[in-house]
Amino acid sequence: MNLLLFERTEVGEASRVVLADARGAHLTRVLRVVVGDEVRAGVIGGPVGTARVLELDAERVVLDVAAVLGGSVPDRPRVDLVLALPRPKVFARLLPDITALGVGSVWVTGAARVERYYFDSHRLDADEIRRRCLEGLTQARDTRLPAISVQRSLESTVKDRLPPGGRRVFADLPRGSDAGDLRESCAALRPEERIVIAIGPEGGWLDAERALLDGAGFVAMSLGPRVLSVGVACAVALGLAHAALRSRADVPLTR
Amino acid sequence: MNLLLFERTEVGEASRVVLADARGAHLTRVLRVVVGDEVRAGVIGGPVGTARVLELDAERVVLDVAAVLGGSVPDRPRVDLVLALPRPKVFARLLPDITALGVGSVWVTGAARVERYYFDSHRLDADEIRRRCLEGLTQARDTRLPAISVQRSLESTVKDRLPPGGRRVFADLPRGSDAGDLRESCAALRPEERIVIAIGPEGGWLDAERALLDGAGFVAMSLGPRVLSVGVACAVALGLAHAALRSRADVPLTR
Repeated sequence: MNLLLFERTEVGEASRVVLADARGAHLTRVLRVVVGDEVRAGVIGGPVGTARVLELDAERVVLDVAAVLGGSVPDRPRVDLVLALPRPKVFARLLPDITALGVGSVWVTGAARVERYYFDSHRLDADEIRRRCLEGLTQARDTRLPAISVQRSLESTVKDRLPPGGRRVFADLPRGSDAGDLRESCAALRPEERIVIAIGPEGGWLDAERALLDGAGFVAMSLGPRVLSVGVACAVALGLAHAALRSRADVPLTR
Repeated sequence: MNLLLFERTEVGEASRVVLADARGAHLTRVLRVVVGDEVRAGVIGGPVGTARVLELDAERVVLDVAAVLGGSVPDRPRVDLVLALPRPKVFARLLPDITALGVGSVWVTGAARVERYYFDSHRLDADEIRRRCLEGLTQARDTRLPAISVQRSLESTVKDRLPPGGRRVFADLPRGSDAGDLRESCAALRPEERIVIAIGPEGGWLDAERALLDGAGFVAMSLGPRVLSVGVACAVALGLAHAALRSRADVPLTR
């Protein structure tokens, strides 16, 4: 546990938070905290800082979170995803990873190569999604849950749901000269721009879907000549985008 | 299945391969091939090409692989890993992903924050490792198994086991000005150089380990301010290295 997360509604009088669940048990049994110890903590959707252990016993841990409440709120990640729904088990496993990597919004969508019954899985329930995303925040020391929405129509997703502006790319296998490198595209972003990356299903996009994405302003970008699974493609795409966003401030990437 | 893999010893007279196992079942039941169909295939450790279905029935599929045997052998990936052994279950899950991303050699090693009993897991058995890596080759359409070796001592691994030369970096959290960006480092590679990336355990390296790596020519490189799990860190590091290797030929990255 790299960050202890709690809800703002859990904060009681004098900035006390009482943990009587798995979080408390983790603090006492795994991290073996004692009274007076400090732990990195954050309010879900809010600031991060250092909490202090005031009391503990077998059932509960009492923390002083005043310094957390006065901390700063992490920035919202500047990268968003349009994600063709993979097998629900893969989707569930992917949520902590993409949350840890940093993603602002995720539009989960259908595609020709997405099985329709995937959308009936309990793994798409809001509570289940939230639980998985919280794992990712705990991992990455972030507090901002990605905004995740589900819509079966790719056309409606890219035409009606995405906010205007920003850079739009879709991951594709190299197809001659029309697929540039995602890294290069991200490197040319203006500081205020967001980037939306569309990741297709296993088996890739159909040509009609490529045309649809193209019509919505998405540029085909390659993640290299090797065929990657959806989970790995997401990790690489988010990693490349964030690396480009980090480095563009200091280092000129092209003449 | 993006690539059907077989051993050279499976090739019989007149370049025939008879599949009577799960691969044959996959061809008939999932891909629903018929006589005359072509499937992308490769020899493990050898060339890739197109195989043709000659016969099939409920028990077996017979392929003509002459065009595969005459194909070209994929290049060995130019990126290697030193990997502090994660929990064995995580390690097993990570093998197909790093193989798909492309890695030449993997030196699995201990570290202060690696539990010793991890090394006793059956998931480190050569057969088990090979099976997982083959999954990654099938995914990525590659035939070259990474060379994976296991040694408990980090010191011995970095001092005695690595081939001389090449670029060496270790992934670390940002620590002020001493941690550059992995992407930038890879971008400055000479065409003939290999790159070795060291990925630490969950919880990170100790200072003594950083000093050891530094002494062996490894430069600290950041994967960004967010704390990533080992699996995600591997995917991002390999993705960044390969993207830099791809792009450096065409695009000047720095003035």
